[in-house]
Amino acid sequence: MMQGYFQEGNYSKRAIFDIFYRSNPNDNGYSIFAGLAQVIEYIENLAFTKQDIDFLRSLNKFSNEFLDYLQEFKFSGTIYSVKEGSVIFPGEPLIKVIAPIIETHLIEGALLNIINLQCLIATKASRMLQACEGDKLIELGLRRAQGASAALYGSRAATIGGCSFTSNVLAGQKFGISLTGTHSHSWIMSFKTELLAFKAYASLNKQVCILLVDTYNTLKSGVPNAIKIFDQLKKDNTLLTYGIRLDSGDLAYLSKEARKMLDDAGHKNAIISASNDLDENIIKDLKQQGATITLWGAGTNLITSSGHSSFGGVYKLAAIEEENGFFRPKIKISESPEKINNPGNKKVFRLYDSSSKKIKADLITLNDEEIDTTKDLTIFHPLQTWKKITLKKGQFYFRELLEKVVDNGNTVYESPSILEIQKYCENEKDSLWEEYKRLNNPNILPVDLSLPLYNLKQQMISEILANNEASK
Amino acid sequence: MMQGYFQEGNYSKRAIFDIFYRSNPNDNGYSIFAGLAQVIEYIENLAFTKQDIDFLRSLNKFSNEFLDYLQEFKFSGTIYSVKEGSVIFPGEPLIKVIAPIIETHLIEGALLNIINLQCLIATKASRMLQACEGDKLIELGLRRAQGASAALYGSRAATIGGCSFTSNVLAGQKFGISLTGTHSHSWIMSFKTELLAFKAYASLNKQVCILLVDTYNTLKSGVPNAIKIFDQLKKDNTLLTYGIRLDSGDLAYLSKEARKMLDDAGHKNAIISASNDLDENIIKDLKQQGATITLWGAGTNLITSSGHSSFGGVYKLAAIEEENGFFRPKIKISESPEKINNPGNKKVFRLYDSSSKKIKADLITLNDEEIDTTKDLTIFHPLQTWKKITLKKGQFYFRELLEKVVDNGNTVYESPSILEIQKYCENEKDSLWEEYKRLNNPNILPVDLSLPLYNLKQQMISEILANNEASK
Repeated sequence: MMQGYFQEGNYSKRAIFDIFYRSNPNDNGYSIFAGLAQVIEYIENLAFTKQDIDFLRSLNKFSNEFLDYLQEFKFSGTIYSVKEGSVIFPGEPLIKVIAPIIETHLIEGALLNIINLQCLIATKASRMLQACEGDKLIELGLRRAQGASAALYGSRAATIGGCSFTSNVLAGQKFGISLTGTHSHSWIMSFKTELLAFKAYASLNKQVCILLVDTYNTLKSGVPNAIKIFDQLKKDNTLLTYGIRLDSGDLAYLSKEARKMLDDAGHKNAIISASNDLDENIIKDLKQQGATITLWGAGTNLITSSGHSSFGGVYKLAAIEEENGFFRPKIKISESPEKINNPGNKKVFRLYDSSSKKIKADLITLNDEEIDTTKDLTIFHPLQTWKKITLKKGQFYFRELLEKVVDNGNTVYESPSILEIQKYCENEKDSLWEEYKRLNNPNILPVDLSLPLYNLKQQMISEILANNEASK
Repeated sequence: MMQGYFQEGNYSKRAIFDIFYRSNPNDNGYSIFAGLAQVIEYIENLAFTKQDIDFLRSLNKFSNEFLDYLQEFKFSGTIYSVKEGSVIFPGEPLIKVIAPIIETHLIEGALLNIINLQCLIATKASRMLQACEGDKLIELGLRRAQGASAALYGSRAATIGGCSFTSNVLAGQKFGISLTGTHSHSWIMSFKTELLAFKAYASLNKQVCILLVDTYNTLKSGVPNAIKIFDQLKKDNTLLTYGIRLDSGDLAYLSKEARKMLDDAGHKNAIISASNDLDENIIKDLKQQGATITLWGAGTNLITSSGHSSFGGVYKLAAIEEENGFFRPKIKISESPEKINNPGNKKVFRLYDSSSKKIKADLITLNDEEIDTTKDLTIFHPLQTWKKITLKKGQFYFRELLEKVVDNGNTVYESPSILEIQKYCENEKDSLWEEYKRLNNPNILPVDLSLPLYNLKQQMISEILANNEASK
């Protein structure tokens, strides 16, 4: 397609593409936006090497003129994005690209790949954290992640969504995420006895000592041996953070029994952590049954977002520049109404209730629209238009979600630290009523269209349908 | 753990670890082994940079002696592996690592990450190809893959499993996979009319021209416009491969109607391809309803293995070397019998029926066992031991699955080309009776243990249980 635009000679006319998504993974009430820092990194480094050009030439599909163009390629467009860590909703633009049409096509694959992974995992982490009810969550997914990038950037996204620690050392190195870990069953099995293995491990991990207790028998061997070690370390007064990890068996029963044993031995401060194919529903159930676990390890189900393995973000044409500089809106119709994109150059307002500071709705508008908080604002559902909400003047405020991050090819954005993004995400979730955060069957936040955008969309749909009739 | 072994001073004693998996993704009857070339690449390049060491030092957890050891680290062990493209079954060792125990721990995460991704996607591709009944499959997953590695190595694995083409240009460049693609809806929308867009695309893609026909209306606009283009190209005599792509609507109905229209216009050679969240069950249903699609595009559901997003390969200790060089078998027991690993240094025999050349069973044995094909061989199920099979002398043959690929740190393996691996995989699947390849509820191939291995395992389990009793 790029060569097509190149040979058509109109490749410098600009187009607007939106990235948006159509439904929340795992039927969640919201999603978490993540991946912007990697989008920026990609845009800044986007170039073709000599080897790339040689490979493309070897395909015998591309003209020398076009390959010369690629060799000099540098992204020259402008990108708007919502902030990382934001809560986001289906249908609203998350990233808006305004660039020469030939450039918009090149970046589609990478942008979607980055955003789809990180939004997926950040959202899953957020669900799991919700189930933890204040307990802490560890990301342990390296071995089961779908490849090295999924492990590394999935760990990043999981941190944004709420994980406190990772076992992925590279993620710790690259992003400054707190590292943690315990030992494996094979560590225990490589010693003559479990007690000797615990002793050796504890002597090397005096400040943070979590012992895996299920290698032979959790309650008969693992916990009693762990208590012997904790007794000794307590005597030596070296312990700061200590406890056990359960990795098999019935976690509700075992954790309750282990808690009693630890408490009876005077180790009320010993942490009980657990892993073993945990997901948000299992954590919720275990907590409801009184499991005494307070540190939850999440591997496979977090890092692959099991049950919903794709975020489903798409990149759709919204407008094309005409010779006079006007952006002509574009629409792609479909038999499914929710699959019809919103045409034109747009922006997104998030509307808040002034007293509770909670989100009332998101409103997608055309780019030249403004909101006047000194007047009442009535918004309506884009499909069931009789569903209306009126925000009373003076009782609401707003913020715009899309901010410029790349300006004519130059980055105008500095990524916050991972902990700042995590904190931002926490605040974002605080701005949602609990009803939108329920794990199953949550309430649906209104994402409405302004009247001008709604009218434009209806008019364009009618025109296309009329054209189809005429061509019968 | 590595520092633990280092400080214990016994880090050069060798251990044996097996990679195996416990169940086939999507309840398939088999899986496909893939990822070995990347395992070798990882092992060959495994080293710590100065930055890595500096980072580890900054954690204040590691001694200078240990960090010095890491700085000089080079893998010195021996690795056995099954061939890429092999059909594999739960419970059998796929990779066997024999190395100083400290080294075995370092490589676990990367090996599992590589193998888990590629076995997962190769197996999913194989299922989808099975549903295609001889049609060809295109991998289109870049935008929805879980990160860049999942896109690239997922494309590789999908090719091993049976995809004929990919839209991922980097995968084409890196692995020599055949590239293909069509244009997007936005290409159509960027022209004044669909016909002009088709014309421009066809003029640039004279030899392979697939037109996407659903931007406005498939049967009223897309297909009639495509036929006009095909008529012209046919006159010009330039067409080699041409056709249409359906991407929405009811693919069974639309493909049948489009087939009639194309045939009536004299384009019996025009291909009908389709995409739109396809998986093996949808493809099977569409074919049963007479869909005329012969080229299937697979994106999200292939590249994320939707419905089963993790392969679940594990890396378990099987034996530890004692001072006299004897490998003491190790076992980890569990309440779930299928989770108990097979102890000891092992190998795997694949047993074939001489006349049909089909696989009868896989047999896991201790490393010093041999099979004598001049005698009858009776094997039995490791859990339901009354389930027995006798292979008559002279009527069966075997091959060993595990081959040495790294010898004391040196690679002794050269990866075949991707097309060779794909062909090998095709042959492997030919060696399976159809009953094992059924998409739903397939027959289960026996993976049995030799009597010496079975006895060793039972004895070790009994000893551990007796110890647990004693410690009550």
